[in-house]
Amino acid sequence: MHRTHTCGELTISDLHKTVVLSGWVYKSRDLGGMTFIDVRDRYGITQLTFDVADDEALRAKARELGREYVIKVTGKVIERESKNPKLVTGDIEIKVSSLEVLSKAKLPPFTIEDESDGGEDLRMRYRYLDLRRNPLRSNIELRHRLAQEVRRYLDDKRFLEVETPVLIKSTPEGARDFVVPSRMNPGEFYALPQSPQTFKQLLMVSGFDRYFQIVKCFRDEDLRADRQPEFTQIDCEMAFVEQEDVLNLFEGLIRHLFMTVKGIDIGEIPRMSYEEAMRLYGSDKPDLRFGMPFVTLNDVLKGSGFPVFDNAELVVGINAEGCAAYTRKQLDALTDFVKRPQIGASGLVYLRYNEDGSLKSSVDKFYDSDQLRHWADAFGAKPGDLLLVMAGEARSVRKQLSELRLEIASQLGLRNRNKYAPLWVVDFPLLEWDEENARYHAMHHPFTSPKPEDIPLLESEPGKVRANAYDLVINGTEIGGGSIRIHDSQLQSLMFNRLGFTPEEAQKQFGFLLEAFTYGAPPHGGIAFGFDRLVAIFAGLDSIRDVIAFPKNNSGRDVMIDSPAPISDEQLTELAIATKS
Amino acid sequence: MHRTHTCGELTISDLHKTVVLSGWVYKSRDLGGMTFIDVRDRYGITQLTFDVADDEALRAKARELGREYVIKVTGKVIERESKNPKLVTGDIEIKVSSLEVLSKAKLPPFTIEDESDGGEDLRMRYRYLDLRRNPLRSNIELRHRLAQEVRRYLDDKRFLEVETPVLIKSTPEGARDFVVPSRMNPGEFYALPQSPQTFKQLLMVSGFDRYFQIVKCFRDEDLRADRQPEFTQIDCEMAFVEQEDVLNLFEGLIRHLFMTVKGIDIGEIPRMSYEEAMRLYGSDKPDLRFGMPFVTLNDVLKGSGFPVFDNAELVVGINAEGCAAYTRKQLDALTDFVKRPQIGASGLVYLRYNEDGSLKSSVDKFYDSDQLRHWADAFGAKPGDLLLVMAGEARSVRKQLSELRLEIASQLGLRNRNKYAPLWVVDFPLLEWDEENARYHAMHHPFTSPKPEDIPLLESEPGKVRANAYDLVINGTEIGGGSIRIHDSQLQSLMFNRLGFTPEEAQKQFGFLLEAFTYGAPPHGGIAFGFDRLVAIFAGLDSIRDVIAFPKNNSGRDVMIDSPAPISDEQLTELAIATKS
Repeated sequence: MHRTHTCGELTISDLHKTVVLSGWVYKSRDLGGMTFIDVRDRYGITQLTFDVADDEALRAKARELGREYVIKVTGKVIERESKNPKLVTGDIEIKVSSLEVLSKAKLPPFTIEDESDGGEDLRMRYRYLDLRRNPLRSNIELRHRLAQEVRRYLDDKRFLEVETPVLIKSTPEGARDFVVPSRMNPGEFYALPQSPQTFKQLLMVSGFDRYFQIVKCFRDEDLRADRQPEFTQIDCEMAFVEQEDVLNLFEGLIRHLFMTVKGIDIGEIPRMSYEEAMRLYGSDKPDLRFGMPFVTLNDVLKGSGFPVFDNAELVVGINAEGCAAYTRKQLDALTDFVKRPQIGASGLVYLRYNEDGSLKSSVDKFYDSDQLRHWADAFGAKPGDLLLVMAGEARSVRKQLSELRLEIASQLGLRNRNKYAPLWVVDFPLLEWDEENARYHAMHHPFTSPKPEDIPLLESEPGKVRANAYDLVINGTEIGGGSIRIHDSQLQSLMFNRLGFTPEEAQKQFGFLLEAFTYGAPPHGGIAFGFDRLVAIFAGLDSIRDVIAFPKNNSGRDVMIDSPAPISDEQLTELAIATKS
Repeated sequence: MHRTHTCGELTISDLHKTVVLSGWVYKSRDLGGMTFIDVRDRYGITQLTFDVADDEALRAKARELGREYVIKVTGKVIERESKNPKLVTGDIEIKVSSLEVLSKAKLPPFTIEDESDGGEDLRMRYRYLDLRRNPLRSNIELRHRLAQEVRRYLDDKRFLEVETPVLIKSTPEGARDFVVPSRMNPGEFYALPQSPQTFKQLLMVSGFDRYFQIVKCFRDEDLRADRQPEFTQIDCEMAFVEQEDVLNLFEGLIRHLFMTVKGIDIGEIPRMSYEEAMRLYGSDKPDLRFGMPFVTLNDVLKGSGFPVFDNAELVVGINAEGCAAYTRKQLDALTDFVKRPQIGASGLVYLRYNEDGSLKSSVDKFYDSDQLRHWADAFGAKPGDLLLVMAGEARSVRKQLSELRLEIASQLGLRNRNKYAPLWVVDFPLLEWDEENARYHAMHHPFTSPKPEDIPLLESEPGKVRANAYDLVINGTEIGGGSIRIHDSQLQSLMFNRLGFTPEEAQKQFGFLLEAFTYGAPPHGGIAFGFDRLVAIFAGLDSIRDVIAFPKNNSGRDVMIDSPAPISDEQLTELAIATKS
């Protein structure tokens, strides 16, 4: 037997018990004739004592233990002299009577501490050691807890978890597929799913009524910090529902998760139309932990001879409350920020509403004091505020100001990781114009239904058709998205046509779904949540990498197992493929 | 709103309520001026009535509904005249006041009934319609329930569900891998996991202590009825355990599943060594729903001049109790059975113990009546029994007799699907001689630990080394298997060496694991259950195909979505591969 207890559970109520513990040597120190060793496992830390007066040889053996050795000890629970109130086990220690080394350990390449001294590359290579650190372990524990609670909630609501296939078929729509050559069908390939979208819709046609799955999905895209080639979705679908039903049910899920996992009642989740989100925050995923809405200033600032404003499609600004005292240098830094190539603005105009009530702008020569007063009034500004204004082509300038809004909020400490501002964004456009390919793309995916009242616009003004589509946004991050689907074969065909599919292409790729809809399809809709991002939000992290046990790096490599790697010629031959250089 | 209730919940207590129901038209019949329609959803069936006297147009509309149309009705709950006690909703019906067709349906290619008239191929092609049938739906519901209970049990035992990567690295050991070409790393490939074996062991090195995952695994093997290219495992691992700990904990899991899902207390699971299982049942997965153990007859039957027995390594038989009255034709059929090429025996000898106490064998000329009496006594046979004996090379004849034992039991109705006989088979050999490649293979996998007392035999008699390995068998089907692992880098290297790996190969394939073991590895072990098979056992089915929502056929094809399929030249070019014919 390797242990009677874990390293995280013995307390004063276990006094005088003889116990067996196993774990990793965490810290070790000598004091007089005593050696103290902290032994660690997933559950906690317990202090062991070895006294030269009791057993000289045993104490000598204890002194030889290195960090991260795996040991097993037998001993007696005794009361500690200097208690540690931070630990559950802090009132006791184990007076060890026997010690066995289960596994020696080389010196780890970085310290196994909350704040490690190892760089990212080294920690990725030795991921199994990095996972010993508390922050990573607790992220993975949090992930488990969230997955359990998701399943509990959905099971209570009579959702069935149904596994859909991983080896499916490549489709040209969407991102790039990972493919898998078929040995039994030479020249043919499976694809890994980007999502189980069509399968969950078929399950609705089958009458499963409520489906979910926590499932791996795959996209062969160029990677960024918050993207992984394989990622996990909470994938859900319901039959006989309208948008309101879906929003209510999954609002319940999110509230359940915050309540059970973090003990926070986030209250009702507000809703905002896509149009409003773009107008007020320049983003379809606004961070609502703080206000700072956009104020449109075309009427206030155009026509005074300042050409930048006069020629602009949109003049729009935000109020950085309490920032009137920003120095020239600080203001220049903000201008530099918006001029960075990835933001691409041409400049930034400011108006200070000084504490003494005076107004001072960077464009004073074009505006008199009355005009400046109007400008300030348009924001409802008060003394101490700083108004920041940008102008240009509407779509671009909204995006640029949105970035500035987030930057200012970060500077002001308004993006508190312990505050949660969830939001439903609704009424997305159905289609989005793709300049490059000169055609419309589905904004969500081709199965999203248009709002019935907008269907007539599909021919005349496709860009104006609104979809029964919705996103869940938390703190400026898109956590989930979904829609009410098309369940009519003819409307689905029309949609494929609008997206530039020929009838033959549509038939070849999605014929099975179109056919399924002819055998009695219920109205249905659903949602998919990015589980990695959801865990990251709960953990207060920006990157999803730290909530995944074994992530890949930005080149899609697992540097720990050194994958991908070449395969043997025999394998290539069996699969009837060859590599090209 | 599409419904106020499901089709499975309205009872007499809902009388007079106005309700909205949606579902599929199941059955329809006319009687006088009335039309009765059974509307179906996942939850049940409710009878709708349309009366010509109330609304002629509505009744006419109802008569036009075809099978599998999706409809929505509003109506009043009324008491039924002729009640149907088989249905929850059998006391009531809905007097419909409005009817909407949500989706028309073509006539399905086979009937949506418990016993369908559709052949397997047709049902696979229209899997979404096949899934509407009660038997399939209830299999998928059962699967969901089992998965939930697995998670509940393991969560209670503090296991953490940790997702391991799907895009990993190809290894030469074991079955064929499916591979995935990497676009970002041209000429290199990921592989899909045959199991998360090394990752779960690394999680133990990381200190996760108790890990599980219900996870898709992949094997590119030629397929049979009970094999699929993608299948699901309940994968588990624990640190600081010995074999006994693992068996106890997972015996608890299996008992929990039988209790919560089927309401059956299966009691303690008996244990049998591999050696005993082979000796008594000729199989490492004996079906213990019935007895019929092997009786070795070398001492009893050799040396009487019957050359088949005299020259045999093993003479062994079973007692088909109560079968003495088998006709000549029945006995010939049994002989034909064992002579089938897939079994390959040369013949079958019988001894009838007639009801009148007389003994009659097929080899009477070699044995006198005293010898026949000894023969019968060796089985403890009684009047009415039929003793069946085979002889030959020990390994082959055990296998053949094992098949005969199962065949007889099937004929006698002893393989009752509602009876459950679980068994732990323990003390498996560590290595198994591979004639073809003239080397030893790991019987479980290369990470399985030898019993410490057998380690000295690794050099001298590798075939005799027993492993800390165990299988869970239910009703003659292997449901799970596992082992205590090697956690010592040196022993693991020795094991790779014994399996014919050069140190370089071992380092290249499993260097990360060998290295991990040098940083402090706890003793650990685990088990993996075939989830598809477990569900099939619970559902009383032989094939796993009916417990998988979207299975593939024997050529690895999904005939519904027509996958695998060729991919575009652009995709091939991006992936830097070419197909060869």
